[in-house]
Amino acid sequence: MPLVTFTSDFGVQTQGIGNMEAVIYAINPQAKVIHLMHGLPSFQISPAARTMETTSCMPQGYHVCVVDPGVGTNRKGIIIKTKRGDCLIGPDNGCLMTAPRMLGGIEQIVEIQNEAFMLLPVSPLFHGRHVFAPAAAHLSLGADVERFGRKLSVKQCVKAPYEEATEKNGAIAAQVIHINHYGSAHLNILHAEWDTLGSEYGNTLEIELGKQAFSAPFCKAFAEVGKGEPAILKDDYGRITVALNQGSFAQKHSAKVGDKITISKS
Amino acid sequence: MPLVTFTSDFGVQTQGIGNMEAVIYAINPQAKVIHLMHGLPSFQISPAARTMETTSCMPQGYHVCVVDPGVGTNRKGIIIKTKRGDCLIGPDNGCLMTAPRMLGGIEQIVEIQNEAFMLLPVSPLFHGRHVFAPAAAHLSLGADVERFGRKLSVKQCVKAPYEEATEKNGAIAAQVIHINHYGSAHLNILHAEWDTLGSEYGNTLEIELGKQAFSAPFCKAFAEVGKGEPAILKDDYGRITVALNQGSFAQKHSAKVGDKITISKS
Amino acid sequence: MPLVTFTSDFGVQTQGIGNMEAVIYAINPQAKVIHLMHGLPSFQISPAARTMETTSCMPQGYHVCVVDPGVGTNRKGIIIKTKRGDCLIGPDNGCLMTAPRMLGGIEQIVEIQNEAFMLLPVSPLFHGRHVFAPAAAHLSLGADVERFGRKLSVKQCVKAPYEEATEKNGAIAAQVIHINHYGSAHLNILHAEWDTLGSEYGNTLEIELGKQAFSAPFCKAFAEVGKGEPAILKDDYGRITVALNQGSFAQKHSAKVGDKITISKS
Repeated sequence: MPLVTFTSDFGVQTQGIGNMEAVIYAINPQAKVIHLMHGLPSFQISPAARTMETTSCMPQGYHVCVVDPGVGTNRKGIIIKTKRGDCLIGPDNGCLMTAPRMLGGIEQIVEIQNEAFMLLPVSPLFHGRHVFAPAAAHLSLGADVERFGRKLSVKQCVKAPYEEATEKNGAIAAQVIHINHYGSAHLNILHAEWDTLGSEYGNTLEIELGKQAFSAPFCKAFAEVGKGEPAILKDDYGRITVALNQGSFAQKHSAKVGDKITISKS
Repeated sequence: MPLVTFTSDFGVQTQGIGNMEAVIYAINPQAKVIHLMHGLPSFQISPAARTMETTSCMPQGYHVCVVDPGVGTNRKGIIIKTKRGDCLIGPDNGCLMTAPRMLGGIEQIVEIQNEAFMLLPVSPLFHGRHVFAPAAAHLSLGADVERFGRKLSVKQCVKAPYEEATEKNGAIAAQVIHINHYGSAHLNILHAEWDTLGSEYGNTLEIELGKQAFSAPFCKAFAEVGKGEPAILKDDYGRITVALNQGSFAQKHSAKVGDKITISKS
Repeated sequence: MPLVTFTSDFGVQTQGIGNMEAVIYAINPQAKVIHLMHGLPSFQISPAARTMETTSCMPQGYHVCVVDPGVGTNRKGIIIKTKRGDCLIGPDNGCLMTAPRMLGGIEQIVEIQNEAFMLLPVSPLFHGRHVFAPAAAHLSLGADVERFGRKLSVKQCVKAPYEEATEKNGAIAAQVIHINHYGSAHLNILHAEWDTLGSEYGNTLEIELGKQAFSAPFCKAFAEVGKGEPAILKDDYGRITVALNQGSFAQKHSAKVGDKITISKS
């Protein structure tokens, strides 16, 4: 089953999404197309990168990301082949650089240069349709990644919008990398990194967010705290989230993507 | 054609939706997946139940509902097999309990307990992906519902978020069960129940909503009243709706899900 | 590959969309269904017509539009067969009348009258499900368009919501036909018409919008102007757009669908 997914900041269904899907079917009618996420905040790389990480919960596939404020400039289009066998396809702006951490690592990076794999003429406004979707479709048919263009090193690519959080003296210095629909803040803390803090379910932790300081328990499920109360949880895609039970953490605490957040044991 | 549908309050496309779809394809690549509705108001059971009723307008299928404020607590996950042959899959919070009224009735209710049909380990945050989607996929492949766990009686399950409206002395005491995109209020009045009131198209009816009282005609189509004028209609899914032509009834009259509404002949 | 697309003003996924998709699969399980656009502004014909034009970027298909404020009245339901071989299906309110300009022209128009191709009984509220989706499904199976009902001339149909812009003395008198998700204004100027103005990339042009007057360069890509600065671009669907780089032109300039806009050389 050749699985192709699309992620973008195109918002509530626009014709761009359907047009990209049609490109896939025209090249590979056997492909299964999944619209993974189109509600990303416009032009923000960090939530896009975060969403691409969630492809690690899917079967191997060809995953396109079109959060692309630099479209039409000299920013490169790239394909990252991961060690798990996935291909990540999109602009070279960092949005593809964190997902490989959850997909076994980077096997190869290639710049998309071969016009034989593009829809010509390429519009300078919409590489999603003219470059990235056709690339995904051809890859899903078995085209070798090396046929798309020259190899790139990680250093030749724009770096990831966030590094992993670091633990020091029982405190984790983290960053908000995504705010979801419910207003929960996703952090750049992997489950394994979190576990080094040694917290057990039910422990209370101290949170610093800008000038705000408050505490919250480490919970398995939202419902362990009262309505509107904060909780720290292992989210469903390998990271740590700070959330309110049936409320918006981001709204209550004015949390934004990029904010520093420190979590420490009481 | 094994038809699987998803209904949720995940809002404008989130990665959760695509992840559930990928789970289906990984287990049953032949399934047709339809995203029935993901714009439900967060954590509200009544609109979710209402939406599940609309599966009665589709061919027989496997219908998943993930409006699940109790995820991770001891609330049960259940499958309701209907007499029409559908399976309704989701949390035991009432969201599945009204649809069988339009699907021939309940044939059987089973608690989802068998880990062989789950994606392990089960995240306490997202049973949609780990429990409900895999259950739908396995059911769509022909797995017998009894293999999923112990049988439950209706009384062992959380009751429906609304009962049917009742008619008395020419008045129907009803309830708002859903507000749709246009602001129209859907009521817990079945077409057959409505017909007992004896209204003919064109008749004017009296509406009481809280302290507000106004009248509206019973219409076949929105366009029979002026722009912004109220009308009572048989909606397209077996129930009665109160709406404004090209306007928002809910906004104009501050109507909310759960509000009592009485309709009587003039 | 029989391709069926849906366009509507149903907003953030509603059950109506999934119900229409299920109708297609029940009649033609081999169809590929694409949700082209459901975020159109309610009841507005112009953006709907604009969106239907974008089907010209897809393979030949059966394209349903349900922006239908007149549903249930005596407005006709129609099928337009285009010279490229597409069928456009929807209400006779103008929403289908501009797309043929980009699909080779109109081959034939037919009123949908034959109940053998409808889901009976037809609800006066939702012809999308009962009339237009079944028509698309039967057409995608090969049903001849003439079997659906009587032939209509263009003059018997409601006219298009916009004509093409006209150029005179180095100025183009245009109209806003759509505001997209980012707030960019799409104009009724075809690329070929634009080219008669003789502007080269990098030229500055004068824009009049109501009482506002300002200038903007003709650009290939958004990123050629500063953040929040205006640009005129060839959009990706054959028309001209006025936009801000990473900002909302519509919000900054209070532009609405239907507004007159004049563009002239400096």
